[in-house]
Amino acid sequence: MAAEAVSVLITGANRGLGLEMVRQMVKGPGTVAKLFACCRDPDGPKAKDLQTLAVKYPNIIRIVRMDVSDLNSIKAGVQHVASVVEKKGLNLLINNAGILSKSTLCDCTPEDMQNVFNTNVIGPMNIIKEFLPLLHSAAKASKMSGMSCKKAAVVNISSGLGSMGLVKDTYGVFPAVSYRVSKAGLNMLALCAAAELKSNEILFSLLHPGWVRTDMGGEEGEIDASESVAGMLSVMATLTEKQSGDFFDYKGEVVPW
Amino acid sequence: MAAEAVSVLITGANRGLGLEMVRQMVKGPGTVAKLFACCRDPDGPKAKDLQTLAVKYPNIIRIVRMDVSDLNSIKAGVQHVASVVEKKGLNLLINNAGILSKSTLCDCTPEDMQNVFNTNVIGPMNIIKEFLPLLHSAAKASKMSGMSCKKAAVVNISSGLGSMGLVKDTYGVFPAVSYRVSKAGLNMLALCAAAELKSNEILFSLLHPGWVRTDMGGEEGEIDASESVAGMLSVMATLTEKQSGDFFDYKGEVVPW
Ligand SMILES: NC(=O)c1ccc[n+]([C@@H]2O[C@H](COP(=O)([O-])OP(=O)(O)OC[C@H]3O[C@@H](n4cnc5c(N)ncnc54)[C@H](OP(=O)(O)O)[C@@H]3O)[C@@H](O)[C@H]2O)c1
Ligand SMILES: NC(=O)c1ccc[n+]([C@@H]2O[C@H](COP(=O)([O-])OP(=O)(O)OC[C@H]3O[C@@H](n4cnc5c(N)ncnc54)[C@H](OP(=O)(O)O)[C@@H]3O)[C@@H](O)[C@H]2O)c1
Repeated sequence: MAAEAVSVLITGANRGLGLEMVRQMVKGPGTVAKLFACCRDPDGPKAKDLQTLAVKYPNIIRIVRMDVSDLNSIKAGVQHVASVVEKKGLNLLINNAGILSKSTLCDCTPEDMQNVFNTNVIGPMNIIKEFLPLLHSAAKASKMSGMSCKKAAVVNISSGLGSMGLVKDTYGVFPAVSYRVSKAGLNMLALCAAAELKSNEILFSLLHPGWVRTDMGGEEGEIDASESVAGMLSVMATLTEKQSGDFFDYKGEVVPW
Repeated sequence: MAAEAVSVLITGANRGLGLEMVRQMVKGPGTVAKLFACCRDPDGPKAKDLQTLAVKYPNIIRIVRMDVSDLNSIKAGVQHVASVVEKKGLNLLINNAGILSKSTLCDCTPEDMQNVFNTNVIGPMNIIKEFLPLLHSAAKASKMSGMSCKKAAVVNISSGLGSMGLVKDTYGVFPAVSYRVSKAGLNMLALCAAAELKSNEILFSLLHPGWVRTDMGGEEGEIDASESVAGMLSVMATLTEKQSGDFFDYKGEVVPW
């Protein structure tokens, strides 16, 4: 049975994990029909690799200008995507864009806390809410029963640093209090979304990509983006309604709250 | 052995759980020397009960004007407290003030998310940071070994609604997504603080007061403020360095992250 081709949207798709997701998805077994690669500056130098990729896969990749900290830009993105997918809706939305601030509690300013929360929590919240009609359409248009990333799903890229259970072991090496607070907040947001939208058959998932060698993860990271993304895509493929609201790492292991 | 008299600060002390804490602490076995009862409008109608109590216990209660969402007002509060406690410092700081918004994810606006986060997370963060010198003084001035609420401690009033582990069971009855995100954020903040300030012998604790009949909890609450506060004070009395960063309810039972 051939899998139905799906539409996917990824935020922060111009570099790091987001760009690698685009790369692997377009090269994959051909199940992605449309891939909306969002980035805040499509014409700038930081989007060159994405532009090159889009030229290579013109039928699949659509670059969408989107700053996740700007509600108007999200709304414009919805219009763009809606005009392409029409009644089929959007099957998979990946909240990947994020920022990191490494400050300790003693160094952390209220502005730092607000900025990181704004991008890492309020951004994903606005995106989920604004794209909800398109996710609803996808759930209704799908002929599959239950939930899956091929039907209607939101995958949120969280972090092991957002795990309360891991703070005692990791805080000394890597404080990042505003980032930790934001990712714990994102976890709660996704859990709430999973509960609220259960009857609409929209799946919500939280993934920890591992410690990855990207601009954010730094050179000391433990794995490459290719390994992280390959792992996360495998995990996404296994998700059903039973895992909605759960928190896994790129190997499929449960991360403690 | 007579317990040493301590100094305590409580935010949001003019009504609800905060006011009840003041009531029980001043009536207690006489170990509270100074109680800084903070509220944002000491001269307004909502502070009448606290004013009456302060007249009855003039040597213990000091009413301090403090809006936890206003950094300048926190800084002014620190000056006030410092001038009273001097080198002895502040032994116990209770982050109790908080606001609730009951909205679902679909109803929740970015402004709602920001406001609740501001009062329930950034407020406590600023208070912890600004009062840190006074908590350090208290830790140094104390002759006790280890950690305790009589030496140097910050108790954060969180909520069972901030527990990720309880979302699936409680979301249908009580969504409150911005409140849940804020309390999960507060939990992470306190955990980080516990890790960062461990070597300074400052204890951090998270308490869930139960579902209490206050303005916030509503009439359908399960217990009265008196029962909740009596329970929380008992739990506080048992806390040592072993429990720093842990999350308990008013009965002393562990709340899951
Ligand atoms: N790398 C790790 O070890 C690691 C570990 C755990 C979790 N994560 C999470 O994984 C996700 C991706 O991280 P990464 O390692 O790929 O980070 P990265 O290399 O720093 O890339 C971050 C991406 O997010 C985008 N972004 C940031 N703010 C944005 C905004 N307001 N609007 C739109 N896009 C925005 C960036 O766009 P610009 O180019 O325009 O800045 C960039 O595309 C993040 O959510 C991160 O928290 C990473
Ligand atoms: N009641 C429950 O069932 C329940 C359950 C779980 C957790 N909690 C938590 O317990 C704590 C106390 O709740 P409660 O039931 O006593 O609530 P409440 O009756 O609504 O009282 C809230 C208190 O917080 C103060 N406050 C709010 N915003 C403030 C600000 N910006 N600056 C200074 N003070 C501010 C209020 O002062 P004003 O009078 O000036 O507004 C009031 O004194 C909160 O953190 C709440 O989240 C309560």
